Amino acid sequence: MSRKSAKKKPPITGTASWRSVKGGITAPQGYLAAGVAAGIKHRGLDLAVLFSSQPAAGAAVFTLNLIQAAPVLLSKKHLRASKGKVRAVLINSGCANACTGDRGMQDALVSVRSLASHLEIDPREVLVASTGVIGAPLPIRNMLKGISAAVSALSSRAGDAAARAIMTTDTCEKTCAVETRIGGKKVRIGGMAKGSGMIHPNLATMLAFISTDVLISPAQLDRIFRRVIERTFNCLTVDGDTSTNDTVVILSNGASGVRIDSALEARFEAGLERVCQELAKSIARDGEGASKFIEIQVRGARSFSDARRVAKSIAHSPLVKTAICGEELNWGRILCAAGYSGVPFDPRALALSICHIPVFRAGAPVQAGRNRAERALKGDTIGIELELGEGNHSARVWTCDFTRGYIDINASYIS
Amino acid sequence: MSRKSAKKKPPITGTASWRSVKGGITAPQGYLAAGVAAGIKHRGLDLAVLFSSQPAAGAAVFTLNLIQAAPVLLSKKHLRASKGKVRAVLINSGCANACTGDRGMQDALVSVRSLASHLEIDPREVLVASTGVIGAPLPIRNMLKGISAAVSALSSRAGDAAARAIMTTDTCEKTCAVETRIGGKKVRIGGMAKGSGMIHPNLATMLAFISTDVLISPAQLDRIFRRVIERTFNCLTVDGDTSTNDTVVILSNGASGVRIDSALEARFEAGLERVCQELAKSIARDGEGASKFIEIQVRGARSFSDARRVAKSIAHSPLVKTAICGEELNWGRILCAAGYSGVPFDPRALALSICHIPVFRAGAPVQAGRNRAERALKGDTIGIELELGEGNHSARVWTCDFTRGYIDINASYIS
Repeated sequence: MSRKSAKKKPPITGTASWRSVKGGITAPQGYLAAGVAAGIKHRGLDLAVLFSSQPAAGAAVFTLNLIQAAPVLLSKKHLRASKGKVRAVLINSGCANACTGDRGMQDALVSVRSLASHLEIDPREVLVASTGVIGAPLPIRNMLKGISAAVSALSSRAGDAAARAIMTTDTCEKTCAVETRIGGKKVRIGGMAKGSGMIHPNLATMLAFISTDVLISPAQLDRIFRRVIERTFNCLTVDGDTSTNDTVVILSNGASGVRIDSALEARFEAGLERVCQELAKSIARDGEGASKFIEIQVRGARSFSDARRVAKSIAHSPLVKTAICGEELNWGRILCAAGYSGVPFDPRALALSICHIPVFRAGAPVQAGRNRAERALKGDTIGIELELGEGNHSARVWTCDFTRGYIDINASYIS
Repeated sequence: MSRKSAKKKPPITGTASWRSVKGGITAPQGYLAAGVAAGIKHRGLDLAVLFSSQPAAGAAVFTLNLIQAAPVLLSKKHLRASKGKVRAVLINSGCANACTGDRGMQDALVSVRSLASHLEIDPREVLVASTGVIGAPLPIRNMLKGISAAVSALSSRAGDAAARAIMTTDTCEKTCAVETRIGGKKVRIGGMAKGSGMIHPNLATMLAFISTDVLISPAQLDRIFRRVIERTFNCLTVDGDTSTNDTVVILSNGASGVRIDSALEARFEAGLERVCQELAKSIARDGEGASKFIEIQVRGARSFSDARRVAKSIAHSPLVKTAICGEELNWGRILCAAGYSGVPFDPRALALSICHIPVFRAGAPVQAGRNRAERALKGDTIGIELELGEGNHSARVWTCDFTRGYIDINASYIS
């Protein structure tokens, strides 16, 4: 999953019956993928195709930014037109094809039609996603050559190549796959995602693609997928910027022969949550310039959305994120960010721990744990636990610290 | 105003009858101030006192953060108890006295009583403000010694010393004063403020103190002051963090002998707006690590609050702020931030200019001005002008770019 040994994964919770497997997006049966270099970026892989060799149910969630890129608008249209049938997804990095006017929509359409023609499928069963600089036109000749090359390269072993082709400032590809057995049959869920800046999914999310071989209706898939996204990708923030191109897609082709009835729904949902949570965490861990992974748990809220709002307010605070970068126990900044979140609570009931070491309780600092908490901040995974004392709902949000690396990457993104 | 020649002031708009004068907070008649080194910070001035030699009307606006520092809670109580009569303000830097429990409130009270006793005034006519690290106790012995020293040092020429004593990470003191003549009498408004991190006043604002010698009732002063704050300090953001200690205070002692009746209200308000706007801009210009001052104008909105919300969304975007730091014409990030502001608009009607050079119009990039816009970004004052095409309201918001300096300052604030 990560080529950077410094970015270790903390354990993932999830239903025990699902075990990790290799292969990413092509781990489930009946999926082919490709990642090729089409010359959209200066160098490296930049065009990916995901293809289900048999008809598949599809669901997708898109950015809620008012300014939506051409590929987002076209994918929404296709998903409506096909009534949730999806056979292929075309993804490019290096150009967002956003704020590109009529030409941008034309370029997206021509690309999708080209892929559909190569694969001999209905263009409305193709979704498209782009990521990169906003406002630059898509280099359409390179796209079309790349699509042709990708179709030739389609393989059930190219999950990693596809995951690399969707990267922009990511330092490592992000894939995940899990497997379980149901009634003697093997069922798999695979996925890939990209970060790592302009990451603050807002009821929609960033670029992520999930495949599974269960048999399920588009409506049921959509319902489960949206629930899982609320608890995974929508609990992720790198910099608070909701992109014009955020897209998460799931395809389900039934190749395992296992139908998800109501008895199996919870089990399938647990596996899907595990894949989505792992991808979301890996995006936070590989946030632009990140040196530390941060998990913020807010407990004792009156609702999940209150808890998440407080956690996100902390996760967005540049002062919290820079303090963690500097390994400073400046916990006042955490309380301050909770206090302006807009969620009402009684400040006297707050209890704050850093990596499970209490630092603030009953309106005053806890001096006893100070040294231990300072040592804990030297680790590369930082936990922030805040108890609100208002109810019994909780939420977890994942983010990363704010470093000079973030500034360096984003002050010279185009040039 | 600024010791840094690199941070030049752009021209300030305002009613022509007011002209700039020296002296800051002590420019108006009947005010004394002091700035002394009390040993609250490691070095430098850290304790300021403002004193009106005659009774004064006072108004103040405080942070809306749920977690409010002891000095904020005490000042609110005093303002209510005195029914808007204020004689003195005590300010310290180096310690926020926030999240410090009962001890913090006791420390604030003892400090205020000490100052009141030295000045032989009612303690309820003293307001108090603190800024610095959250969660650390106030070094009360040093405070009391400092208060005594400050009272001895009170002078009508110490406006600059007081402005220096309230600084934390500010690189220069921020003062402003204006004068006009009304009916042959000289009227002045003076002010001082501090930045420069944790700056995102939210219906309240950061630390700023204004003095004037007009005659006005507390109620009228409060009404005018709140209107002006909405258009000045509340249009300012450095990092989106609303502090636990935000406080703006105005004192009006009538020493000029000019009463602000309804005929004079607009003229007084224009002078007050000029002082507050200049202080707000100087805070943005001296934001932590800032290399560029940014003014964002949003026009064509359905209301002032819509316009300001869009402008603040742009001003908060780390991606916009880092692109400007890098002098990159990555205008897609500006549209993206407008698109997730939560204010509805038709993306096709947007028109965006950088330093008055059009870069996006009618849904597509404007290539013609690209080179000129790129050159404009090399300046140290950057204008962003966005037309929404929805109505005829507008707002201006001031901020600064996001640099490695911000990270460096905030990753090592305590140590």
